[in-house]
Amino acid sequence: MTSRSTPCCAPVLEAPIGKAEAEDLAAGLRAIADPIRLRLLSFIAAQPGAEACVCHLTAPVELSQPTVSHHLKLMHDAGVLEREKRGAWVFYRINPERLDALRDALATTRVRRARRARAAS
Amino acid sequence: MTSRSTPCCAPVLEAPIGKAEAEDLAAGLRAIADPIRLRLLSFIAAQPGAEACVCHLTAPVELSQPTVSHHLKLMHDAGVLEREKRGAWVFYRINPERLDALRDALATTRVRRARRARAAS
Repeated sequence: MTSRSTPCCAPVLEAPIGKAEAEDLAAGLRAIADPIRLRLLSFIAAQPGAEACVCHLTAPVELSQPTVSHHLKLMHDAGVLEREKRGAWVFYRINPERLDALRDALATTRVRRARRARAAS
Repeated sequence: MTSRSTPCCAPVLEAPIGKAEAEDLAAGLRAIADPIRLRLLSFIAAQPGAEACVCHLTAPVELSQPTVSHHLKLMHDAGVLEREKRGAWVFYRINPERLDALRDALATTRVRRARRARAAS
């Protein structure tokens, strides 16, 4: 399990990464590599203030509250979602820093440079 | 399975995405959400010319050639790798357009804007 405090992630395409770095990034990507979870992220982002409680999210994905809560918990554990208790409900928000860290780890600058060098040779 | 010709992918955090769009993006992310496959991408990118044949890749990940070939095939099927036959060997290269499309689909601009608006209200 990726801890939310783990610095993430080594740039995959800049230099060979080690086993631990690969496990860490894979765990982050696995948390979002699921169509239900991507739709939940999308619905949360589209709400006013880009936050939602589980009560808002069951209807759009047509799943039970326990199932939706399970998906939300997995994304919270992976650092992709933040949560805040308000009265009886827990509200979820997307953690853009975590998503941007995953995106940055996949940056293609070096690969594009290598392709330009091949084309020029 | 995501076809390499499928236009990918709807921006998840800009507006609610549909089931088909979510499946397409999830398939692309699943192809790289694996520590062995991330290390293979990393080793390929680090080779001279950012390309490698399976013969270069078995030692770094300490796996058999059939296993490495299976992982490479999954990433090729998902459009993440391109391949080219040269004599007896198949060489693999990373497709930066496909990786950038996955990264772009996770752009956090709208979420960050919503957070600034919450902080200012």
